[in-house]
Amino acid sequence: MADLMRAAVKSAALPKSTEVRKVPIPSVRPDEVLIRMKVASICGTDVHIYNWNEWARKRIKVPLIQGHEFCGHIEKIGSNVEGLKKGDYVSAEGHIACGRCHMCRTGNAHVCRTVSILGIDRDGSFAEYMTVPASNVIVNDPDLPPELATMQDPLGNAVYTVTNANVPGKTVAIFGLGPIGLMAVAVCRAMAAARVIAIGHTNRYRLGLAKDVGAHLVLASNPELVAQVMDATAGEGVDEVLEFSGSEDALRQAIEIVRPSGGIHVLGFFKHAPTIDINELVTKGVSLYGIHGRLMFKTWYDMAGLLKSGNLNLRPILTHRFPLEKYNEAMEVMVTGNCGKVAFPMEG
Amino acid sequence: MADLMRAAVKSAALPKSTEVRKVPIPSVRPDEVLIRMKVASICGTDVHIYNWNEWARKRIKVPLIQGHEFCGHIEKIGSNVEGLKKGDYVSAEGHIACGRCHMCRTGNAHVCRTVSILGIDRDGSFAEYMTVPASNVIVNDPDLPPELATMQDPLGNAVYTVTNANVPGKTVAIFGLGPIGLMAVAVCRAMAAARVIAIGHTNRYRLGLAKDVGAHLVLASNPELVAQVMDATAGEGVDEVLEFSGSEDALRQAIEIVRPSGGIHVLGFFKHAPTIDINELVTKGVSLYGIHGRLMFKTWYDMAGLLKSGNLNLRPILTHRFPLEKYNEAMEVMVTGNCGKVAFPMEG
Amino acid sequence: MADLMRAAVKSAALPKSTEVRKVPIPSVRPDEVLIRMKVASICGTDVHIYNWNEWARKRIKVPLIQGHEFCGHIEKIGSNVEGLKKGDYVSAEGHIACGRCHMCRTGNAHVCRTVSILGIDRDGSFAEYMTVPASNVIVNDPDLPPELATMQDPLGNAVYTVTNANVPGKTVAIFGLGPIGLMAVAVCRAMAAARVIAIGHTNRYRLGLAKDVGAHLVLASNPELVAQVMDATAGEGVDEVLEFSGSEDALRQAIEIVRPSGGIHVLGFFKHAPTIDINELVTKGVSLYGIHGRLMFKTWYDMAGLLKSGNLNLRPILTHRFPLEKYNEAMEVMVTGNCGKVAFPMEG
Amino acid sequence: MADLMRAAVKSAALPKSTEVRKVPIPSVRPDEVLIRMKVASICGTDVHIYNWNEWARKRIKVPLIQGHEFCGHIEKIGSNVEGLKKGDYVSAEGHIACGRCHMCRTGNAHVCRTVSILGIDRDGSFAEYMTVPASNVIVNDPDLPPELATMQDPLGNAVYTVTNANVPGKTVAIFGLGPIGLMAVAVCRAMAAARVIAIGHTNRYRLGLAKDVGAHLVLASNPELVAQVMDATAGEGVDEVLEFSGSEDALRQAIEIVRPSGGIHVLGFFKHAPTIDINELVTKGVSLYGIHGRLMFKTWYDMAGLLKSGNLNLRPILTHRFPLEKYNEAMEVMVTGNCGKVAFPMEG
Repeated sequence: MADLMRAAVKSAALPKSTEVRKVPIPSVRPDEVLIRMKVASICGTDVHIYNWNEWARKRIKVPLIQGHEFCGHIEKIGSNVEGLKKGDYVSAEGHIACGRCHMCRTGNAHVCRTVSILGIDRDGSFAEYMTVPASNVIVNDPDLPPELATMQDPLGNAVYTVTNANVPGKTVAIFGLGPIGLMAVAVCRAMAAARVIAIGHTNRYRLGLAKDVGAHLVLASNPELVAQVMDATAGEGVDEVLEFSGSEDALRQAIEIVRPSGGIHVLGFFKHAPTIDINELVTKGVSLYGIHGRLMFKTWYDMAGLLKSGNLNLRPILTHRFPLEKYNEAMEVMVTGNCGKVAFPMEG
Repeated sequence: MADLMRAAVKSAALPKSTEVRKVPIPSVRPDEVLIRMKVASICGTDVHIYNWNEWARKRIKVPLIQGHEFCGHIEKIGSNVEGLKKGDYVSAEGHIACGRCHMCRTGNAHVCRTVSILGIDRDGSFAEYMTVPASNVIVNDPDLPPELATMQDPLGNAVYTVTNANVPGKTVAIFGLGPIGLMAVAVCRAMAAARVIAIGHTNRYRLGLAKDVGAHLVLASNPELVAQVMDATAGEGVDEVLEFSGSEDALRQAIEIVRPSGGIHVLGFFKHAPTIDINELVTKGVSLYGIHGRLMFKTWYDMAGLLKSGNLNLRPILTHRFPLEKYNEAMEVMVTGNCGKVAFPMEG
Repeated sequence: MADLMRAAVKSAALPKSTEVRKVPIPSVRPDEVLIRMKVASICGTDVHIYNWNEWARKRIKVPLIQGHEFCGHIEKIGSNVEGLKKGDYVSAEGHIACGRCHMCRTGNAHVCRTVSILGIDRDGSFAEYMTVPASNVIVNDPDLPPELATMQDPLGNAVYTVTNANVPGKTVAIFGLGPIGLMAVAVCRAMAAARVIAIGHTNRYRLGLAKDVGAHLVLASNPELVAQVMDATAGEGVDEVLEFSGSEDALRQAIEIVRPSGGIHVLGFFKHAPTIDINELVTKGVSLYGIHGRLMFKTWYDMAGLLKSGNLNLRPILTHRFPLEKYNEAMEVMVTGNCGKVAFPMEG
Repeated sequence: MADLMRAAVKSAALPKSTEVRKVPIPSVRPDEVLIRMKVASICGTDVHIYNWNEWARKRIKVPLIQGHEFCGHIEKIGSNVEGLKKGDYVSAEGHIACGRCHMCRTGNAHVCRTVSILGIDRDGSFAEYMTVPASNVIVNDPDLPPELATMQDPLGNAVYTVTNANVPGKTVAIFGLGPIGLMAVAVCRAMAAARVIAIGHTNRYRLGLAKDVGAHLVLASNPELVAQVMDATAGEGVDEVLEFSGSEDALRQAIEIVRPSGGIHVLGFFKHAPTIDINELVTKGVSLYGIHGRLMFKTWYDMAGLLKSGNLNLRPILTHRFPLEKYNEAMEVMVTGNCGKVAFPMEG
């Protein structure tokens, strides 16, 4: 093992300040493993850090190697680690939970209050090597292609949202067609949702991807949207709404189009606190579920099973590949929105 | 059976226009039963009709006999009715559902779109006799005191909300101490909630009733409320919030005090659409459940069982009794808010 | 409308005593509809009646027109019927529940104690016309092919069992490859079960059909079955078992192959009360669910949605078609077991 | 801290071979804590080991300090332990799970395949000090009396069983009136079960305790039991059965007395594999749940909340106290069955 590795290092508290350079390979603590990267991929959060937005300025300490989506092979094992070995083909949950609080001890570690995150609060996956706590590691099915394995963190968001909505046989509306929304379309189709209505902004690229991953109906935001959905559902409305857009309009429309006793599952992040017609929600007996992260680790087992089923059509979502050296170019593609998932293959 | 009966008739589309007078006893249609009233009681909705507020002006057609809380005995059976007989001691679900729609056919008749309501859309219980569709009738336990039996419609609201929150062993905050909120306090205590925090406005009468029905802690609305609840829960927050107040402040506070992966169960009616911090709700993985009416008829079976358990302390909530002739006086007590439940005993 | 119709009438309390002849078209009661048959199909129960087995001798009163699987069009409406009209394309739930008991009023009408069944306790679908209570009627999607629509009663058994097991992403073993077991294979595949292991007796015809509807692995009963399943699941066992065989051996194997905290979902009928290793079931924290009929009518809505999704591959299961005149020939095919579903197209 | 402690040491692979003597205080490993015992109590399993039954002969290696029910204070902290400190008032979950398997990672650590148990597979609580892995430790409410705190392991069995049955408002039959069955009676009453029917063998002592902890009806096993329960439930049967007896007769009766769509929750251990009428179970749509241990750690949080509610009447169950020196005398009381829970107060 070499002493140095290539890594994309956010080096200054400024926008677009990342440079790819040689840095020391991190050393492994007793409860950690060292992973040799196979593929890493870019999350929308990475773009926020790249752009150095308000949230990033508060949260991020430089220098930082970003990235929390990846797959690779275990290179080295910490002295206390059991059940993993060198060469294992792995990915990892990005949220590092305390393991001791009420939430962690009752299957809700995804909302542990003292969570820290790979690639945000410590160095991440945009490098040839990274360390991860052993308890966060997931051993992948050897048959899982690396370009799908790297997507499991956002796919896990989609799978958690979709499984929370229990969609087989149901009519589902999905707001927001970024990578997670697109994955949710594919997951709903894989699970035999009766009808999947994908609703995006006016970005034609992503509306097209929604079609490619199997949406029965694709709609662009417009003033007649509610009427269009009611029309497409014979006036019944949809059984479940999945909200990934963070749009106040979408949330209002969600309450209008969901049928009585249906559900609204919200993973989107909202720039402004929305005003919502809660009387309508109450009168209809609708529930609104806040969805955060992925269940640790129920969602990962669900996801592995879905990937294994053969029903999941995710290939169209991975639209761009760049060598790590073209890090800034890759980020600029993300900024345009004319892409699905953007990946960095790291090894042959 | 006499041809005429005493009834409180809302006779004009004006505030406070009810007069108690003799009217014909209604005739029974094939699928209905005629009930001889034992006790009826007043719902907050009845006060809105009495006051002829904006909602009432749109919804109510006069003349109308109001009232949907009651118990009595079956006096007469329609020709198609099976499974009921003269003399049965009964109450009834006030929501009349269509029985044929998606919701009705999947255990969600409480949110049937074409619902009509006793005492609102047809004559109700503030009279010596009323008719009710047989399929809405509940046969009461003969040991259930009439003054409790009449409360089952609002108690059902409370029971549905509390059972939705699955409270045994949990810490619960209850916003809103009208009769339904007070009943929810009693139901939570009956089911062994770890700690019940009752939060009211500044009405001392109702804060006192909350104590009487067993709240572990009673708090009046105040700017330090969130801090007080966090303090009372060792900084953990509450597991579940039950919202009966319809206050935007309460809903905001609910999101602050509920612990990650907790639930907020909303039955309250809001004068204005609230603005809520949905990012906080999502990040905490909290769910917000719209609660409407009572499950038909799961909630009624739950309620009968709770009433039978011996754990349910509802007596303090029935604070006032009036003969039907003092209808307007009874309504004015309701207007003051210095009361729990107000009842009209109709017989001996 | 003609006064007479063709019908297959079980005329004597003897095996194989059915004759196809002209009988009067039944008259419609106020709460019923008259249906003109499009396609009817044969259930295993019909074979028991045809063979006049012990159960049939106790339960069935002749003369009887059998049959409870069908689709057709409404020809006539009873005087009290709302929400249906002449010409509607319909099927029906075969269990007629009382509507008034605890089970019926809490979403469990499928286990109403006083149920009666179409084609068993009253005349059924092996005729040109039949009457059905309006509340049992399901309006089909106009795009649903009649040869699938007729299968909805047994498909509903499969859908209820599979949805009870919540299979997306899970490894599932299915014992029993009669039509319902085969449908369950197809439903599991439609919903993205990770891996579907279909286990049949040695009937090669049905083992082949299991492959045709998409089982990942098909196994014939044999002494090494448990080892084979453990091997196929990397020693983990399966997440869920669906039991349609009624075999004591299968139930014992189910307890061995299911993983801790998994589920066993039993619809099969057992000739003898099985002896089961309940300590193993308890120690593993496994649940065993008795599955009866179909949820009324949640399962029907689930099923309509699954049929609409496009994921459900049921075509291979319908293997034989006969004109009603060849009733006895059709039954004899069922007796051999070398078939999937056998149907009687009645029109065009 | 002294170098030696008093402990009850099972010293030979023979019945009744325990002697109380001085042994070294155990040393603490990095992930463990050392606990100074306040109260320990005897489980039925301890009696099996004491009697050296067949199971014990296979599983137990001597010398062994038994005991897994206890409370005490932390005396010493291992070097890697976070979140605990000297002086904390604690109990502990007795099942030590691997933390890495499918079950452990999905909230089902109670059925981890590689579990080891305190006081069975390593030294336990019948001593002045014991070590426990830090991740198994529960910090008790300081207001919880030690004589209740020591019972939390078996109380957790009861709480898990009762919460699995969701008893508020329901009619419940409980078979088996050992300490766990008695605790289940108390928990059902605390949660407002409509009616609790406690069914024991003919041991009058325990039938009396069932009454003391609040059973509405106490029945001794007898040939008319099914008829008695049906009579006591107006022919409806019970909603839920909790089975702690391990009796084949009880399990058969359970299937007869449970109402359609009800549940049977089995924690009992059966000497012989029972033969059960699974057709009856299936036709009624009943589910049978295997209950093992306690959910780690959801049950412990539920239990802490129930203990805090004030509704839980457990005092009558603790019937005997002995100094550790009278270990064999205490065990002999357990052997008679004329007791509830038997405890060893260790300090002041």
